[in-house]
Amino acid sequence: MQSAAASFVRQGKKIVAIGRNYSEHIKELNNARPKEPFFFLKPTTSYVPSGGKVEIPRGIIAHYEVELGLVIGKGGRDISQEAAESHIAGYTLAVDMTARNLQDEVKKKGLPWSAAKGFDTFTPIGSFIPKSSISDAHDLRLSLKINGAIKQDGTTGDMIFRIPRLIEHISSIMALEEGDLILTGTPSGVGPLAPGDNVECALAGPSGNVLDTLNFTAVSREGGYQFKL
Amino acid sequence: MQSAAASFVRQGKKIVAIGRNYSEHIKELNNARPKEPFFFLKPTTSYVPSGGKVEIPRGIIAHYEVELGLVIGKGGRDISQEAAESHIAGYTLAVDMTARNLQDEVKKKGLPWSAAKGFDTFTPIGSFIPKSSISDAHDLRLSLKINGAIKQDGTTGDMIFRIPRLIEHISSIMALEEGDLILTGTPSGVGPLAPGDNVECALAGPSGNVLDTLNFTAVSREGGYQFKL
Ligand SMILES: [Mg+2]
Ligand SMILES: [Mg+2]
Ligand SMILES: [Mg+2]
Repeated sequence: MQSAAASFVRQGKKIVAIGRNYSEHIKELNNARPKEPFFFLKPTTSYVPSGGKVEIPRGIIAHYEVELGLVIGKGGRDISQEAAESHIAGYTLAVDMTARNLQDEVKKKGLPWSAAKGFDTFTPIGSFIPKSSISDAHDLRLSLKINGAIKQDGTTGDMIFRIPRLIEHISSIMALEEGDLILTGTPSGVGPLAPGDNVECALAGPSGNVLDTLNFTAVSREGGYQFKL
Repeated sequence: MQSAAASFVRQGKKIVAIGRNYSEHIKELNNARPKEPFFFLKPTTSYVPSGGKVEIPRGIIAHYEVELGLVIGKGGRDISQEAAESHIAGYTLAVDMTARNLQDEVKKKGLPWSAAKGFDTFTPIGSFIPKSSISDAHDLRLSLKINGAIKQDGTTGDMIFRIPRLIEHISSIMALEEGDLILTGTPSGVGPLAPGDNVECALAGPSGNVLDTLNFTAVSREGGYQFKL
């Protein structure tokens, strides 16, 4: 049987996603730079595996955000930065889809982000990459193309808060469990998807060696929620 | 083996909590009345069973909010109000603990509520009450006492958005799964807990028959997150 970490998409209970962790992305959305990491939760019902369809709800402007994911192996709370690495089972490539117009609205009103980040199919997800395959998680290339045109191309070396700090921060608030996923934030270049768009993402090592790819197609959501101002 | 619904505390994957669903509670916090339901996610790592301890993190003002919980039996998406009842397996009594000063701060900044609502032990939880034990979920009494003094005493008849509408709304955004918990909002009377406080909650039927009780003690969290303005 696969470990809960290797089958995190099916067995994991939570997705903890870090906001504003790359300077250039903070600038492009005119956001404030955080003094400590902050995060939001996405439901695991938002996972869609590579090759699937991302559904854009009616009235929603849906932005892509390509991100490195950390898959928790050993659970814990109050994990120190020194111990953080030993709690990681592996990595994955993910897209944190975001209903940007709904998010802008709830930010203005001081309301939760949960709907804006949590629609079904809003977390396209790659394969489980065992930790042993990656020598330095802060030296990886994250890229995203739409219909063949490059839109995001960043390095995980540009994270403001690095991986051990993220694990320390989250686990000081909520316990982490095997199969939990941490999304580490997106580099610059985010933007909207239109129905029919074909999205291809890649995670590559320092020498250009591709560690994983993730692709999906955007479609219009039939029925369901409709955003109105 | 117990169904995933009956053992939702161990097996459930998400907690979807509705905000501002009772008029008197909206007034006491000077909040705006929502035009449609809104919700946030709490992690299942925040569950603490009756008889346990709620930990108050350093610098945090932790408010109690007693609420009726709906335990999902049959999963689904785009669930109609007519079908909603058939997706409920049972009910439970819960407290939606809230880091009020942190929540006030993130509301001002337009940031997520996930930390303010998601600390370990921030969801004290009662027993699974099978649906067959409750004839009308909108005619239940929710009460909460601190050290014997009554603080909250409301009826589920006062919900602004009723249960079928909540299920319709949530499932139009994110699929519900067996074992998911929906918290339906709190009546008025919320306030802070101090370390050492003993909290007793009850859920009762229209004739005063007690359906479940839930009690816990507040303690100071050792270590972990510290709130600073
Ligand atoms: Mg993101
Ligand atoms: Mg939130
Ligand atoms: Mg509440």
